[in-house]
Amino acid sequence: MLYHIRMDVNLPPDLDPEERADLLAREKEYSQKLQREGKWPHLWRIAGEYANVSVVDLADHDELHSVLSGLPLFPYMNIEVTPLAVHPNKING
Amino acid sequence: MLYHIRMDVNLPPDLDPEERADLLAREKEYSQKLQREGKWPHLWRIAGEYANVSVVDLADHDELHSVLSGLPLFPYMNIEVTPLAVHPNKING
Amino acid sequence: MLYHIRMDVNLPPDLDPEERADLLAREKEYSQKLQREGKWPHLWRIAGEYANVSVVDLADHDELHSVLSGLPLFPYMNIEVTPLAVHPNKING
Amino acid sequence: MLYHIRMDVNLPPDLDPEERADLLAREKEYSQKLQREGKWPHLWRIAGEYANVSVVDLADHDELHSVLSGLPLFPYMNIEVTPLAVHPNKING
Amino acid sequence: MLYHIRMDVNLPPDLDPEERADLLAREKEYSQKLQREGKWPHLWRIAGEYANVSVVDLADHDELHSVLSGLPLFPYMNIEVTPLAVHPNKING
Amino acid sequence: MLYHIRMDVNLPPDLDPEERADLLAREKEYSQKLQREGKWPHLWRIAGEYANVSVVDLADHDELHSVLSGLPLFPYMNIEVTPLAVHPNKING
Amino acid sequence: MLYHIRMDVNLPPDLDPEERADLLAREKEYSQKLQREGKWPHLWRIAGEYANVSVVDLADHDELHSVLSGLPLFPYMNIEVTPLAVHPNKING
Amino acid sequence: MLYHIRMDVNLPPDLDPEERADLLAREKEYSQKLQREGKWPHLWRIAGEYANVSVVDLADHDELHSVLSGLPLFPYMNIEVTPLAVHPNKING
Amino acid sequence: MLYHIRMDVNLPPDLDPEERADLLAREKEYSQKLQREGKWPHLWRIAGEYANVSVVDLADHDELHSVLSGLPLFPYMNIEVTPLAVHPNKING
Amino acid sequence: MLYHIRMDVNLPPDLDPEERADLLAREKEYSQKLQREGKWPHLWRIAGEYANVSVVDLADHDELHSVLSGLPLFPYMNIEVTPLAVHPNKING
Repeated sequence: MLYHIRMDVNLPPDLDPEERADLLAREKEYSQKLQREGKWPHLWRIAGEYANVSVVDLADHDELHSVLSGLPLFPYMNIEVTPLAVHPNKING
Repeated sequence: MLYHIRMDVNLPPDLDPEERADLLAREKEYSQKLQREGKWPHLWRIAGEYANVSVVDLADHDELHSVLSGLPLFPYMNIEVTPLAVHPNKING
Repeated sequence: MLYHIRMDVNLPPDLDPEERADLLAREKEYSQKLQREGKWPHLWRIAGEYANVSVVDLADHDELHSVLSGLPLFPYMNIEVTPLAVHPNKING
Repeated sequence: MLYHIRMDVNLPPDLDPEERADLLAREKEYSQKLQREGKWPHLWRIAGEYANVSVVDLADHDELHSVLSGLPLFPYMNIEVTPLAVHPNKING
Repeated sequence: MLYHIRMDVNLPPDLDPEERADLLAREKEYSQKLQREGKWPHLWRIAGEYANVSVVDLADHDELHSVLSGLPLFPYMNIEVTPLAVHPNKING
Repeated sequence: MLYHIRMDVNLPPDLDPEERADLLAREKEYSQKLQREGKWPHLWRIAGEYANVSVVDLADHDELHSVLSGLPLFPYMNIEVTPLAVHPNKING
Repeated sequence: MLYHIRMDVNLPPDLDPEERADLLAREKEYSQKLQREGKWPHLWRIAGEYANVSVVDLADHDELHSVLSGLPLFPYMNIEVTPLAVHPNKING
Repeated sequence: MLYHIRMDVNLPPDLDPEERADLLAREKEYSQKLQREGKWPHLWRIAGEYANVSVVDLADHDELHSVLSGLPLFPYMNIEVTPLAVHPNKING
Repeated sequence: MLYHIRMDVNLPPDLDPEERADLLAREKEYSQKLQREGKWPHLWRIAGEYANVSVVDLADHDELHSVLSGLPLFPYMNIEVTPLAVHPNKING
Repeated sequence: MLYHIRMDVNLPPDLDPEERADLLAREKEYSQKLQREGKWPHLWRIAGEYANVSVVDLADHDELHSVLSGLPLFPYMNIEVTPLAVHPNKING
């Protein structure tokens, strides 16, 4: 089941550089594990902002909450979730 | 070049049914032609709303405007455009 | 799977009274059929507004869109969808 | 009398972990006591956000304020209250 | 039980003058009946706007919805409801 | 002359408890003195929020600013002022 | 007593030209009468918008409401009222 | 003196096609005359929207209002004006 | 040339009292110098808020930016600028 | 390809003055290098605000993100990106 997610990251500019680097490394690892499992099929940077647009493919709302609240950057993000349905004009790929 | 588009459709409830059917048929044809050309790779319905989330793949901003303003439903839509860049955490498919 | 829905109804004050009565009768029938099927477990009026808060229990986003876009009042409503997950503090009933 | 409540939690990321754990434990205990008393019949997590949707069943506005302002997390929350009335389309369970 | 209500009236400027006069006369009668019953203790005009601030004193949310949705101007108003509790600094009159 | 005031209080959760208690005691004393003088006829808590709705009765805008900016909690509040006029439907008490 | 007023005018583009001319003529006459009486000391056009910023000098909120609701363009305007007090840094002219 | 202008056009979809064509032709002529006079140095289409971003170079606020309110599309536009100053980091061209 | 300015001041409640007093003294001196030069003809306190409405009379946008960014409180303010033109209904004083 | 950018700078008032001076010097150097390369053709200060309006001319969204996220002030800015297309009424310079 597909969910459209927009994540806006608000890291304090005075965050300890080591803590920041560690956070970002763990975020990358976490995100790439989910991508390899096929659960995070789309991930784009919003040009000019510290934000991304994602589409995730998960079993249900509980898995969605578990995946998003487990993001290392979760305490620093605003997240907006939009459930996606099939569009009647979509052609088969 | 990828653009993230959100389109919200506001058709007046009292639109003439024939005009409405004609508009929707032309919208479908227009959209599917662009899909077949590879210019509209993603198209999802926002569940519960008369709206969609799309990702289009076009040469530049002028082609983007030409494609969007040519939509038969363009006069009835609010459109929000977000340019997408590569995300550094994205793995190759 | 549970979805929280807020629906705000905007019927034009000058709508033909018969058309209005017919719309509302069909809305009631549609809503009550879904309630009897267990798909619309909660339905409350927001006090003082022509609006409701609902919780629906459906198979997936596609069924959600089908149910909501099939509402007779759909062309006259603003709808806001929020996916609900289990809360860790919730006790069993 | 039913009230619909949305609570958004804003804990500072640098909150002392022990203080945080203590806060969350007290919040859980407080919430579950009210649930056992039948005063907090519905509690859902908003998927992907540190937020919940609740329905509480209380005697009046004063009890409502007493219950909400007594939440251990109250100083860290934005709370939105919506009074709920019976919906005319609701069928008996 | 006290509720704070803000009502904003949006009458179309081209409303038939007779219909308008009739609406306003019925609104006045309806409002004054509730005032005489002690159910609408405060009613002020917001200076410079076609809007009012009211405090109503009603048994519960269902009576609130019944009272507000029965206003002759209801189809032309935006209504915002805020439940009021006792303030701890309030002295007895 | 009547002014409708909404005050939202934003005390930092980590405020020194003694400073907080002192602030609140001074706020109470200040508010009650104005109530006893008949200048603050209505004061209600907004149920579920650290906020109040007030109606104050003062000579003019300068006295209004003097009264509000003198509130001990003034540096921690958002304040919204709405001038109130007589409503034509109001009956005499 | 001074009030800061912002008025935004929303005349329908298809308003009958004669009705429009009549409205604007009456608005001008009404406004200039108040200016000559010293009740409307400041009146500026917001550059690029069909809107104005005004400062009016009136006895109280009731006169304010009477003056504003009597504007011929009142049914077509959004009006925002802000009470003005003396600024402590203001020097005498 | 430079002003940054954003114009959003809201033409009703059911506008008479001839009236629409006439409006657009006059808008074009009006805009190009100002461009040739050097008063409208920048004019861009916002990609995907019926809107533009402009920079105009005019003598003062009165000329600005005269130019903008004279636009044939003025009754159908929302206009946002932002005065522009020299940026200290700007290099000479 | 006239500009309408709204300034909202956000001084942190825990600002060092001496620094605060110094800031306010410098702000007063700065403002009064401009008033004496005829560049700041109107200055009002917004009743009940730490904010003001001003009208300044300056040569151009560059002088405007220089004047406003030189305010000692500038780093603590939100500023909103609106260019003012002559209103066609304005009578001569 | 042209992008319209609005940047709002939020430097904390208590930033260390040396760090602040260094940031601003690096921002200036960075910006001027891009201007000399022809990649930042327009740069204006928004009069009265710590903000600018820019037009940048870059190869694609990835270069845009690289340029903007490399700004020394990036962690302190809100950035809004709008893709610009050719306007049909634009005359050749």
